[in-house]
Amino acid sequence: MKTIIILGAGRSASSLIHYLCQHAKENNWQIKVGDYQQELADEKIKGFEDIASSFQFDINNPTHRQEYIGQADIVVSLLPARFHIEAAKEAVKQGVPLTTASYITDEMQELDQEAKDKGIILLNEMGLDPGIDHMSAMKMIEEVKEKGYSIEGFESFTGGLVAPESDNNPWNYKFTWNPRNVVLAGQGGTVRFLHNGKYKYIPYHKLFRRTERIEIEEYGKFEGYANRDSLNYVQKYGLEGVPTVYRGTLRRPGFCRAWNCFVTLGATDDSFIMEDTQNMTYREFINSFLRYNPQDSVELKLMQYLKLSQDDLEMDKLIWLDIFSDKKVGLPSATPAQILQKILEEKWSLDKNDKDMIVMYHKLFYKKGDENILRTSHMVVKGKDQTYTAMSDTVGIPLAIATKLILQGKITRTGTCIPIHKNIYEPVLKELEQMGINFTEEESVMAPGEVSSL
Amino acid sequence: MKTIIILGAGRSASSLIHYLCQHAKENNWQIKVGDYQQELADEKIKGFEDIASSFQFDINNPTHRQEYIGQADIVVSLLPARFHIEAAKEAVKQGVPLTTASYITDEMQELDQEAKDKGIILLNEMGLDPGIDHMSAMKMIEEVKEKGYSIEGFESFTGGLVAPESDNNPWNYKFTWNPRNVVLAGQGGTVRFLHNGKYKYIPYHKLFRRTERIEIEEYGKFEGYANRDSLNYVQKYGLEGVPTVYRGTLRRPGFCRAWNCFVTLGATDDSFIMEDTQNMTYREFINSFLRYNPQDSVELKLMQYLKLSQDDLEMDKLIWLDIFSDKKVGLPSATPAQILQKILEEKWSLDKNDKDMIVMYHKLFYKKGDENILRTSHMVVKGKDQTYTAMSDTVGIPLAIATKLILQGKITRTGTCIPIHKNIYEPVLKELEQMGINFTEEESVMAPGEVSSL
Repeated sequence: MKTIIILGAGRSASSLIHYLCQHAKENNWQIKVGDYQQELADEKIKGFEDIASSFQFDINNPTHRQEYIGQADIVVSLLPARFHIEAAKEAVKQGVPLTTASYITDEMQELDQEAKDKGIILLNEMGLDPGIDHMSAMKMIEEVKEKGYSIEGFESFTGGLVAPESDNNPWNYKFTWNPRNVVLAGQGGTVRFLHNGKYKYIPYHKLFRRTERIEIEEYGKFEGYANRDSLNYVQKYGLEGVPTVYRGTLRRPGFCRAWNCFVTLGATDDSFIMEDTQNMTYREFINSFLRYNPQDSVELKLMQYLKLSQDDLEMDKLIWLDIFSDKKVGLPSATPAQILQKILEEKWSLDKNDKDMIVMYHKLFYKKGDENILRTSHMVVKGKDQTYTAMSDTVGIPLAIATKLILQGKITRTGTCIPIHKNIYEPVLKELEQMGINFTEEESVMAPGEVSSL
Repeated sequence: MKTIIILGAGRSASSLIHYLCQHAKENNWQIKVGDYQQELADEKIKGFEDIASSFQFDINNPTHRQEYIGQADIVVSLLPARFHIEAAKEAVKQGVPLTTASYITDEMQELDQEAKDKGIILLNEMGLDPGIDHMSAMKMIEEVKEKGYSIEGFESFTGGLVAPESDNNPWNYKFTWNPRNVVLAGQGGTVRFLHNGKYKYIPYHKLFRRTERIEIEEYGKFEGYANRDSLNYVQKYGLEGVPTVYRGTLRRPGFCRAWNCFVTLGATDDSFIMEDTQNMTYREFINSFLRYNPQDSVELKLMQYLKLSQDDLEMDKLIWLDIFSDKKVGLPSATPAQILQKILEEKWSLDKNDKDMIVMYHKLFYKKGDENILRTSHMVVKGKDQTYTAMSDTVGIPLAIATKLILQGKITRTGTCIPIHKNIYEPVLKELEQMGINFTEEESVMAPGEVSSL
C-alpha cells in the first residue's frame, strides 16, 4: 500500500482530492490530507473516509514536516506558494517525490541535482496556468517541429471567466479565483513580447488599451491583454528564433477598456495607504483621484478626465458598480487597490448557483512550403458547481493525474521540472481528454500579408 | 583658530567653498577640503591656498573619519547623500557639529538625543530645495500666524531651469543638475496633496497632465507639476488643519505635455533592461513601445497612439530631439530611462556660455476678517557662469552661512534639525538677501469663489 500526503486543503484542493480518492482502491493507495485547520481537510475527504484520513499540519513545524513527509510515497503541496520550498527540502532529504501547481522558484530549481541524486522528481507548474498551458502548447509546437515546418509565431491566452449561463452583469465578469490578483493584474513589471522579430514593451497604464480580439465558435468573442514577460517562454518552449511570442489573459470584449478607467485614475495602486479610508464613501474614493472643483459632479469630472461620453459603455459599467454612491468603504488604513477590491467583491462575487468557465486559446503560425498556416487550439471548461469549479478541475485534475503517473512509475523523469517534456504531457493530456478537458484544433491558410493585431 | 572640514568637493561645492574661504580671515578659520579624488579639492581651493588645504578622504575608511572629523570645529558634508550618516555618527561621537544640504533620514533623526547630549547641532536640508524653500515658507507662514490670521492654503513651487538668455530650444529646458533625476522625476511614489480639505492623489502616468499655471513679472509664464508627498509638510510647517497644501516643480509651459509623451510610451521606465540596446537606433527605441505595423511610419504610429496631430507643439519638441532618427543608442544592457537620458543629454546639455536659473514661488492664502488674501513670494536667481551656477549658489551659500553662524555661536540650537526655526531661518534669509538671493512679496485680495487650478 502506497501513501499520498496532500499538504493544504483549501478551495483549490477539491477536484484533486476527489480524483485521487476515486483512484485509491484500484491502485492500493491511502490518502492523508493535512491542513493547519484540520476541519478543512475533514470536509474535503467526506465520503472517502475508508481510504482517506486527515491530520493537523503546520509547515513551519519541523517535526510535522519530518513526520508526515516521512510517511509519504509522494507529496502533493497545495500550500500557499511561498511554503512549497520547505516541503520540497524535506521531500528531497527523505527521497520522496513532490508535485505542485505553482511556478518554479530559483530555490526550487537549486534542489534539482539533489533530487536527481535521490532519484526523485520535483514536478512544478502542473495545474492550469501554469500547467495545461505548457502541455498543450508543447504538444502543438513539437508536432509541427517534428514535421520539419518552420514556426513563425506562437500566441497563447488563458482566462478564468464566468460561464455564459451565469453571465448577467455589464462587465461580463465575476471573481472566480483570488480577487486581489485580479485587481493587481499587470502590475508585476513591464510587459514584453516579440512581434514579427521586434521586441515590444507595454507600460502598465497602456496594458488594457493594447488588446487582441479572439473569437471561439459556440462561445463568442473575447479580448486578450498581454501577460508579464512572454520572452521567458522562448527558451522554455524551444521557440528560439521564432519572430512572434506572446502570452495573454482573456476577458470578454469591453472589459479592458472599462478596467483601464481604474488604472488611469490610480485606483488599482497598492503602494500607499490612503487617508481616512474608514469614513470614506465610494464617491469620495473616486473623487480623490480627480481635480478639486465643487461646481462639477464627480461623474462629470471623471468623464472629462478619462475623455468619456455619457453614453459610452464604460460609464454603464462604472455606474453599475456603485462607485458614485455614498456607500462607506469602512476599511481602516487601506490602499486604493484594497478599496477597489472591496467595491468589486460586492458586485463581482459568484451567486450560489453560478458557474465559472476556463478558456484557453493558442495560435501557432507556421510555414508549410509557400503556405502560411495558422493552427488554433482551444479548450473551454465549465464548472459543475461551486465546489467542483472549472478552476478547481483544471488546476487539480492534471496535478492529480501526474501524481498518479509518478506513483505508477509511468513518469520516470527525476529532478526539478515542469511539464514541457513529451513523456509527461502526452499521458496527462490523454487522460484529461478522456475526462472532457480537451482541446479543439483547427487549421487555416493565411492570406498573404495578414498580420496579427497584437 | 577654528577648523572647518568640508567633505566632498564635487560640482555643488564651488559656491560653498568660495563663501567660506572669503570669510575665513576675518573669522580666523582654516578650511580643509577632502575628496576621494584629492585633485577635485585642489581645484576648488585655488586662490585660497593661504587659508585652505586639501586632503584625500574616503568616507568608508574609519581612520579617515576619525582623524579628519577629530580635527574639525564643524563638518560640512557634501558627500553623496547616503554617506552623510557615517560622517554624522563620527561627528556626534567627537562632539563636532555637522551641516548638510540633504533630506534628513530616519538614521539621522535617531542621532538627535545623542547630539543634544553632546551639545551639538546636526543641521540638515540647508540648501535650496530642501533649504531655502523651508526658510522662506516658514517666514511667510509664521508672519501671518503671528498676526492671528487663519491660513487657508499654502502652495510652493521650485524649478531648476535655463536662464532666458540661454533658452534656445523648443522645450525651453536644459539639464542644469543631475539628468537622471530629471528623467525619473515623479517615479518615487504616488503624489498626494490637500486641496480645499480634500485629499488628492495623482498616479505617475497622469502627473504631467495635472499642472498649474504661474506667471512671474519679468520672467513670464511657468507651469508646475505636483511633487511627491505634500502631506509631509503639514506637520513640518505647522499647517495642521489648513485645507490646501501643495508642493510642485516648475517648468516652462508646454514642457509637461510633451514630457508626458515619454511617460505614456513607457520610455522613462527604469525597472527593466531592454533587449539589444547596443545596436538599437533611437527610432527603434521609440518603435519598441508602439504596435507592430510595417505599413505605417513610426511617426504616424506614435501620433495615433498618443492622440497627437502633426502640428501639435509636442511633435515639434519630439522631432527636435532626433528620436525618430537612425542614430545608434550604443549602450549595452540599458533601461528605457537610461536610453532616454542619453538621447536628452545630446540636446539638453548646457553650452559653454549658458546660464542656469532657479525659480521659487510660494502662494499663501489666508483670511483677514472677511477678505481672502493671496500673498505670493518669489525668488529668481541666475547663474554667473558654469562654475558659480544658480544651483551651486542657492545650494551652497545658505549652507555656508549656516555653517558660519554655528561657528560664530549665533545658531545655538542642538540636536538633529532642519531650518524651520526662526532663530535659524531669520539670520540666514537676511544674509542671503544682502547677497541678492531674495524674495519679492505681493499681496492681493481674491475674488469670492476664486479657486486654485491644482
